[in-house]
Amino acid sequence: MNFEHLLAGRTEMMGANAIREILKVVSQPGMVSLAGGIPSPDSFPMEIIKTLTENVMEKYGSDAFQYGLTEGFMPLRAALGDLLKERGISAAPEDIHVTSGSQGVLDGVAKILISRKDKIAVEAPTYLGAISAFNPYQPEYVCMDTDDGGVIPESLEAVLGNNAIKFIYLVPTFQNPTGRTLSLKRREKIAEIITRENALLVEDDPYSALRYRGSDIPPIKTLAPDHVVYISTLSKIFAPGLRIGFYAAPELMRKWLVLVKQGVDLHTSTFNQALAAEYLSGGYMKAHLPVIKALYKPKQEAMLSAIQKYFPKNFTCSPSEGGMFLWVRGPEGYDMTTLYQRSVEKNIAFVPGCYFYTNPMEGIETMRLNYTMSDVETIDAAIEKLSLIIKDVD
Amino acid sequence: MNFEHLLAGRTEMMGANAIREILKVVSQPGMVSLAGGIPSPDSFPMEIIKTLTENVMEKYGSDAFQYGLTEGFMPLRAALGDLLKERGISAAPEDIHVTSGSQGVLDGVAKILISRKDKIAVEAPTYLGAISAFNPYQPEYVCMDTDDGGVIPESLEAVLGNNAIKFIYLVPTFQNPTGRTLSLKRREKIAEIITRENALLVEDDPYSALRYRGSDIPPIKTLAPDHVVYISTLSKIFAPGLRIGFYAAPELMRKWLVLVKQGVDLHTSTFNQALAAEYLSGGYMKAHLPVIKALYKPKQEAMLSAIQKYFPKNFTCSPSEGGMFLWVRGPEGYDMTTLYQRSVEKNIAFVPGCYFYTNPMEGIETMRLNYTMSDVETIDAAIEKLSLIIKDVD
Repeated sequence: MNFEHLLAGRTEMMGANAIREILKVVSQPGMVSLAGGIPSPDSFPMEIIKTLTENVMEKYGSDAFQYGLTEGFMPLRAALGDLLKERGISAAPEDIHVTSGSQGVLDGVAKILISRKDKIAVEAPTYLGAISAFNPYQPEYVCMDTDDGGVIPESLEAVLGNNAIKFIYLVPTFQNPTGRTLSLKRREKIAEIITRENALLVEDDPYSALRYRGSDIPPIKTLAPDHVVYISTLSKIFAPGLRIGFYAAPELMRKWLVLVKQGVDLHTSTFNQALAAEYLSGGYMKAHLPVIKALYKPKQEAMLSAIQKYFPKNFTCSPSEGGMFLWVRGPEGYDMTTLYQRSVEKNIAFVPGCYFYTNPMEGIETMRLNYTMSDVETIDAAIEKLSLIIKDVD
Repeated sequence: MNFEHLLAGRTEMMGANAIREILKVVSQPGMVSLAGGIPSPDSFPMEIIKTLTENVMEKYGSDAFQYGLTEGFMPLRAALGDLLKERGISAAPEDIHVTSGSQGVLDGVAKILISRKDKIAVEAPTYLGAISAFNPYQPEYVCMDTDDGGVIPESLEAVLGNNAIKFIYLVPTFQNPTGRTLSLKRREKIAEIITRENALLVEDDPYSALRYRGSDIPPIKTLAPDHVVYISTLSKIFAPGLRIGFYAAPELMRKWLVLVKQGVDLHTSTFNQALAAEYLSGGYMKAHLPVIKALYKPKQEAMLSAIQKYFPKNFTCSPSEGGMFLWVRGPEGYDMTTLYQRSVEKNIAFVPGCYFYTNPMEGIETMRLNYTMSDVETIDAAIEKLSLIIKDVD
């Protein structure tokens, strides 16, 4: 039987994304991959997890394996309230819902808000997972300009002035793909704009805990609490395979997001939520986070200094104090997809930056480099090798 | 900020369902609930789970906590292939995908197939979780008539003849809410109809492993493999809190369902999938399933005989050889919602059957009774008490 004629109109915008194709290439033996976007398995608290499973079995017994509330496992929501407090966000456990990865919130927000052809404001470049979540609801994207300081507030202002925008999507801290961070000043300006324009911001914050230098900057949620759906995840500070995301949102949004989640997966794994609750409330996360940062910091520094040392001077790297990525821009008109083809032949992979733009003509001279999955020596050698390929392509 | 004006049109069909409101009432202290729809925590293999967590940590280490394939964890897909084989379904591991509960497949099927006002054929009554999954995509429901043998094939034939149906949704074995099962003869007839009419069937099979009497009947998938998306779950034979569902579907469907899942949750918890893989492949499920059936069988028998003993003779129960529910029909015009109000006041809860019909005027004289969550004595006493209330209401 051929089902093609049965497909709904919304599948038109649901093609496979280019990055997944790249990541397939990357798994070939011998490939040094700076292309991935995943945490190092060395960052997972494996010994702690053993203790957590024992604690959970002991403390919650069969409750940890039963159906649970769509909103989330209450001990975890309480622990997340404490985590958010440290980020300056005051939210009662009831105000925080747990989802199956932050992907689950992105799908939910899109489902309750986007009608076909509705306009969504996104950064250029932006996080592709969000685009995968939004696309099935057939929005149109309106891009906001960015520079090394992240999204430019005046561009947001212009976009809101010229379009009926359903919501704005931003990753303000150590953005994927650029590693860039919005300054407090820009955050204040954005908070002021969305409050004045009565706009809704979806603030996605997966990386802020992975800061290697400098000082924490408060989420925009703290500056305009009623206008922001704040999304985060434990994927980068616990274990991504457990699929624990969460959000703090105004009450009406929460009500609708729960109805969405009832239809999509009923609730997130109770057992995994209980493990996460123990990880946070038992003080294990506080003890383990420095271990993760100590793992990644030298990798990031190795990549930064290798780029400075080996890359041509007209290749510049966006400043970044944390997260998992660096963003390099070649000279104007330089085609990173050509470089990608050549470097893959020589067993080095990265992601050409153009794939992170909703307008596929943009960003051809950019590349995303991941440093979490390789060791310091490999990073140095790979960047040196990449620089030789760059010179060779010239 | 008020977001009401931002809501997408699809939220119109996404109201809270009445059953969740009932289940809130049910959690009041002192309430004897025959209203729930969840497995008994006594059915969970708690000691086995301890062994499984140790095996998984040992065998897979950090791989069990890393991001995984959207399609599912390969060792689990291989084990599910063996499980399906026992049900007569031949599917390679590649043909089987894992989802976050069977709810995840229902959402996915709806997302790729339903455009607004598309028609979906459902049983009257039908499983409400499916309706929650389908509603956000704004379908229209066309109901198929049922009797004590489940859906009537001639009704399916008429529905397909008179409507452009995107897909048919059926729970052929121990259906929720009725506990009814389609005979092999009806299955063959349905397979013949969907093949002839080139129709797509979504066959939802959460309960078939919970058979207390009689012989297994092969899934419709075995009779018309190219026309059926077969959905099942480990929620009733392992633990629902782990949220492990799965499906076997034709290749084009799988391709699109993977694209959906990338946007919704990336993948199902790797750790939980690894636990499930060990549970199945290690022979633990085979050893534990008889324990679950031995737990539920006397409960079902107690409820069946109490209904016969206490209920008025014009209250009849659909025959059922397994699952979690019995379905009782009162005399024509009898209003079970009135009985519900009175019985809740006396601390006994059930679900009025009308809530399982997409047409809210149907089924007012029906009720769903769950027997998994109460012990044999409680079931007998509750049915007796309910019969006194019935006589009192008359």
